[in-house]
Amino acid sequence: MTRTPEDLLDFACSALDEVRAQAPLVQCITNSVVTGFTANALLALGASAAMVDIPGEAGPFAGAASGLLVNLGTPTGEQREAMREAVEAAHVAGTPWVLDPVAVGSLPVRTPLSHVLRDLRPTVVRGNASEIIAVTGDGAGGRGVDAADGVDAAIPSARGLAKRTGAVVAVSGPVDVVTDGRDLVRVSNGDALLTRITGGGCALGAVMAAFAAVDDDRFATTVAAIAVYTVAAELAAERAAGPGSFQVAFLDELAAVDASTIRARAVLS
Amino acid sequence: MTRTPEDLLDFACSALDEVRAQAPLVQCITNSVVTGFTANALLALGASAAMVDIPGEAGPFAGAASGLLVNLGTPTGEQREAMREAVEAAHVAGTPWVLDPVAVGSLPVRTPLSHVLRDLRPTVVRGNASEIIAVTGDGAGGRGVDAADGVDAAIPSARGLAKRTGAVVAVSGPVDVVTDGRDLVRVSNGDALLTRITGGGCALGAVMAAFAAVDDDRFATTVAAIAVYTVAAELAAERAAGPGSFQVAFLDELAAVDASTIRARAVLS
Amino acid sequence: MTRTPEDLLDFACSALDEVRAQAPLVQCITNSVVTGFTANALLALGASAAMVDIPGEAGPFAGAASGLLVNLGTPTGEQREAMREAVEAAHVAGTPWVLDPVAVGSLPVRTPLSHVLRDLRPTVVRGNASEIIAVTGDGAGGRGVDAADGVDAAIPSARGLAKRTGAVVAVSGPVDVVTDGRDLVRVSNGDALLTRITGGGCALGAVMAAFAAVDDDRFATTVAAIAVYTVAAELAAERAAGPGSFQVAFLDELAAVDASTIRARAVLS
Repeated sequence: MTRTPEDLLDFACSALDEVRAQAPLVQCITNSVVTGFTANALLALGASAAMVDIPGEAGPFAGAASGLLVNLGTPTGEQREAMREAVEAAHVAGTPWVLDPVAVGSLPVRTPLSHVLRDLRPTVVRGNASEIIAVTGDGAGGRGVDAADGVDAAIPSARGLAKRTGAVVAVSGPVDVVTDGRDLVRVSNGDALLTRITGGGCALGAVMAAFAAVDDDRFATTVAAIAVYTVAAELAAERAAGPGSFQVAFLDELAAVDASTIRARAVLS
Repeated sequence: MTRTPEDLLDFACSALDEVRAQAPLVQCITNSVVTGFTANALLALGASAAMVDIPGEAGPFAGAASGLLVNLGTPTGEQREAMREAVEAAHVAGTPWVLDPVAVGSLPVRTPLSHVLRDLRPTVVRGNASEIIAVTGDGAGGRGVDAADGVDAAIPSARGLAKRTGAVVAVSGPVDVVTDGRDLVRVSNGDALLTRITGGGCALGAVMAAFAAVDDDRFATTVAAIAVYTVAAELAAERAAGPGSFQVAFLDELAAVDASTIRARAVLS
Repeated sequence: MTRTPEDLLDFACSALDEVRAQAPLVQCITNSVVTGFTANALLALGASAAMVDIPGEAGPFAGAASGLLVNLGTPTGEQREAMREAVEAAHVAGTPWVLDPVAVGSLPVRTPLSHVLRDLRPTVVRGNASEIIAVTGDGAGGRGVDAADGVDAAIPSARGLAKRTGAVVAVSGPVDVVTDGRDLVRVSNGDALLTRITGGGCALGAVMAAFAAVDDDRFATTVAAIAVYTVAAELAAERAAGPGSFQVAFLDELAAVDASTIRARAVLS
């Protein structure tokens, strides 16, 4: 059954309440640049965060966590080992996990690693257009964390990646696109200031893991996570004087935004 | 001699001035999530911060630092080695050190490590109730960095830990408890927003190390650190719109709070 | 030809526009405390940031990046290997790179490493007075990241270091000094609040790498980076209530400051 944008908006509103009621514990194996911002975004939203990212602990923790984020931003040797261990344990326990293939394309450590992880059945894959194309194996990837390619250019890769892996695939950009290989939804919220702070995309991956923890419909939870995150960003941008005050306002809005505001402002199509 | 809450409040006021006068240099071996916030809290307060956490340097630095924080939040292999080295050098030099056993309980690397460090005579041990129970060896620990157990439930463990190790033990929660195994004081300040930002507890451990550097009475310096930190948090919460603006206001208040405000607002019993 | 302060001010104004037009991609191999703030400062300014700091990737990335920062704040084993690799690749590709010898002096891992890197022809070396003296080999270095020595005391070392290595050398302090071994310029802007937040100096090193990417005159680009950075800090301090709000305002000002403000406020001599 194809879900309508209206269905997905209804779902997003109830999922936000559910995240706050359940406070899912999200394990983050993520890059050294955005650890603090990511944890603060999860806590602001009402979820819990734990950065358990060393070998020997990442696996046991993933078996008990509500959700898991695997972000390839600064993949040290210990993190790479922890990622594999956590993903295996997540599968055994049924913990949903999000793969964020930061800056893959030509970098020789993370690119093959992203291909290995891609084939280990992530629940969600999130990236900008260049990263989604590269993790699929369809292109050469971007320039650092910037998106050289437009979101629309990545849709064929996103659909193919979803079909091949069973993951929901989210392409971040001025308009966000989510597909499960069959359905495709666009979320037209957010603000360019999200690209003027570090971790704007990385923290979204963690929020997707929090939403994935509260319902088995991961196409709908991924859309919900984007809608809540980007509406909060829009609200923050309206009262920000620049990237510094935007970041502060964004955390405040993630904590304050409620279902009625999401219903009024989220633009799904 | 048992110290009264009034004595401890007097002490806290003068210790705050002393921290600002001496600007103690606090070495932090801490987790990757909170490094920036921890350093900013120390600098705001008027102390100095140095994250020297690699083997070969952690020991020499601990011999010269004014205080040392050992926080188990993301204990990489290099950090674990640096911790042991730093603690040994701290003992030789008489540098006070604070152990923060983040998320110990069932995690299989940090939990035995916390027991080893616990027995190496920390000056102060700080954690939430679950962590204090687990580092003592009395329970199974918490769920990530949340406190599953109430502060009062941890008091027997805290007293036992203090007697066994000689450390001052601080249990963080809505009301903070400090004991040296004999005396026990409660500090009833702070705000729930401290739990909606990452590092709210971790940075307090660093502040305890800064206060421990200015006086040998570590029961009194630990109470002073909590009083100053939680009063600053209260003041910040009064003008914050959410967790983002709270974090900003909290750093401002750590820099601005003075002895007369501590005297007027700290609630010790 | 000796450049006058007026020439350098003209240059700074056009270089700021150039950084925003080109959005140079700055690779940062930097310490775990300041990664987020450093990336946010680069993004606020209009540059791009990528923390590619693992062996096997740091080299390839440095060959493609617009500029490179090598900061010794928390030099793990993997980072030390990544630094050597990145510096080699930067030389082959002609990528300008900035060396920031944080806390060198007596610490036994980073100090010899700083000497090795110093002799690998950095484009710019930035540090406080104690660090510049120590990286030159002229003294015992400072106390953590504080500057025990005054800026003027470091000028002979700075000149000698510039002559010996071919680098432009910048000494940070209440007044910043830049020399290429022959010319010497002072920038008298900034605010003491820059020393009450972590990363105030570290992020400046990254900004120097961004400016170095847009013109081959690295004496002039280094002066320009300092002028823009410290004028933004001054503007932020005027409306900050403390170190927390200063950090927020500073990122806003880095994004907002324009050439006419730099021309009106930068004090070069």
